Amino acid sequence: MFFALDIAGTFVFALSGAFKGVREGLDWLGISVLAVLTGVGGGIVRDVLLGYTPPAVFRDERYLAVCLTGALAVLLFGRTISRTWNRVMLADALGLGLFAAMGAAKGATFGLGPLGTIFVGGLSAVGGGVIRDVLVGERPAILYKGFYATAALAGSATLVVLTWSGMAVAPRLAIAASVATTLRLLELARNARLAQEA
Amino acid sequence: MFFALDIAGTFVFALSGAFKGVREGLDWLGISVLAVLTGVGGGIVRDVLLGYTPPAVFRDERYLAVCLTGALAVLLFGRTISRTWNRVMLADALGLGLFAAMGAAKGATFGLGPLGTIFVGGLSAVGGGVIRDVLVGERPAILYKGFYATAALAGSATLVVLTWSGMAVAPRLAIAASVATTLRLLELARNARLAQEA
Amino acid sequence: MFFALDIAGTFVFALSGAFKGVREGLDWLGISVLAVLTGVGGGIVRDVLLGYTPPAVFRDERYLAVCLTGALAVLLFGRTISRTWNRVMLADALGLGLFAAMGAAKGATFGLGPLGTIFVGGLSAVGGGVIRDVLVGERPAILYKGFYATAALAGSATLVVLTWSGMAVAPRLAIAASVATTLRLLELARNARLAQEA
Repeated sequence: MFFALDIAGTFVFALSGAFKGVREGLDWLGISVLAVLTGVGGGIVRDVLLGYTPPAVFRDERYLAVCLTGALAVLLFGRTISRTWNRVMLADALGLGLFAAMGAAKGATFGLGPLGTIFVGGLSAVGGGVIRDVLVGERPAILYKGFYATAALAGSATLVVLTWSGMAVAPRLAIAASVATTLRLLELARNARLAQEA
Repeated sequence: MFFALDIAGTFVFALSGAFKGVREGLDWLGISVLAVLTGVGGGIVRDVLLGYTPPAVFRDERYLAVCLTGALAVLLFGRTISRTWNRVMLADALGLGLFAAMGAAKGATFGLGPLGTIFVGGLSAVGGGVIRDVLVGERPAILYKGFYATAALAGSATLVVLTWSGMAVAPRLAIAASVATTLRLLELARNARLAQEA
Repeated sequence: MFFALDIAGTFVFALSGAFKGVREGLDWLGISVLAVLTGVGGGIVRDVLLGYTPPAVFRDERYLAVCLTGALAVLLFGRTISRTWNRVMLADALGLGLFAAMGAAKGATFGLGPLGTIFVGGLSAVGGGVIRDVLVGERPAILYKGFYATAALAGSATLVVLTWSGMAVAPRLAIAASVATTLRLLELARNARLAQEA
């Protein structure tokens, strides 16, 4: 189940990279490159920092395969997916929560302290997006749209606290991921309301 | 022979970094830093991803030495080298092919699957250029000049296919590198023709 | 003593990141993220390159703690600290020297040759600043304000030469750090004089 969610998170991050590529007017190859780097970037940064090399995304080909599938989906059905952008944002929020929780869990497994665990969990969740934004020459959204990073860090911090509580792994991950995803969805809802009022 | 070609590739990538530094109006130190980071960047990214640390460029001082030599050559003879820019582009295409082939071969040695191998081979070939472009505040060329990345990925993919065929290492590397270099040279020739017609 | 100086260097680099965040109009979270990444960035790059993972900053929570303290200090007392900016630049110069010397020493411990050692020492000293500048969309200062990198590389090179001389570790580090810090302070003094004359 966690692997499935991990793959789902990778897929939606790849979608967000591919959409950014379309907006920037890239050709199909640039879109694919951006989709792959956005999809796997956070996990690569996490694993390189932890010394878990080659990173997980190179140990199971399905990670890269779903990124390419995401790029292909945007190239073929981009117009349709845009109409369902809200669903993509929902999936992105799910991916954010999952990556924050699993990144923090992996950091704790490697013996990091609470601050280090939160740092690595946060980077797992936002790393792909930072790479995406730097590559297209934009300021990374995490610095300017604070709540995205807040949600990731809150999810990682939740995992740290729950680890102290001695809770089993599965509910611990589920609760930490839910905290991050919920915070992110609340922010999206608030932005949508503000946009409507304006 | 492969070491010699590897050094040659590092050298021409360093040249491209140094020339970029000249165009950006950097001082001699900025030019040297950019030459070194462009020359060794792809190899460092490759080796860090594979967990081969310290990276090869730190295990044999000749890599850094040829980068500095490249920077010095541009500082002293830049005007002359510019006149022979076509030869530099030829060398760059050779380096691209070699790095794609050897990066992919190294990835396969570390047990990566085909997609991972192509990914790492492509990064080996283009990583230095991405670092160079990000450092001077430009969008990385790989996203916008698709054929450069295409050539690298095609070379890496050729190596993967040839590995399945059971071919010996030397011809495998030679063919894969040739595919990437040839694709790159065809693109350069096409661009030159377009420029002439315009 | 060295740990104390290392922590001090991390702290002042975090301060420089936080100040940059204030100037860029980031919110408190963006400022904290930038402070942390600037403070620990150089050490992370160094340790990942050397294969010393997880990096030192994740093995002792005090590194991340002082970065957050630096961010908090800027948020609470930013106005006061600005008035004492000269003192911050002094501390930054101390941090630069220390990171260059200790980064080079760590590289030598991992068996790197002289060029590799200087490269890693230089990256330790400037890596955090490069990350800071790229994240806010500026050209990294090291490429354009050559003397900053010169000071770092000179400090690392001094350490390499002193290692050959067979000098004990403590004076070796102290002299190498002093060389880098002094060069940096001379440059700051020169800039201040130029500004006064203009």
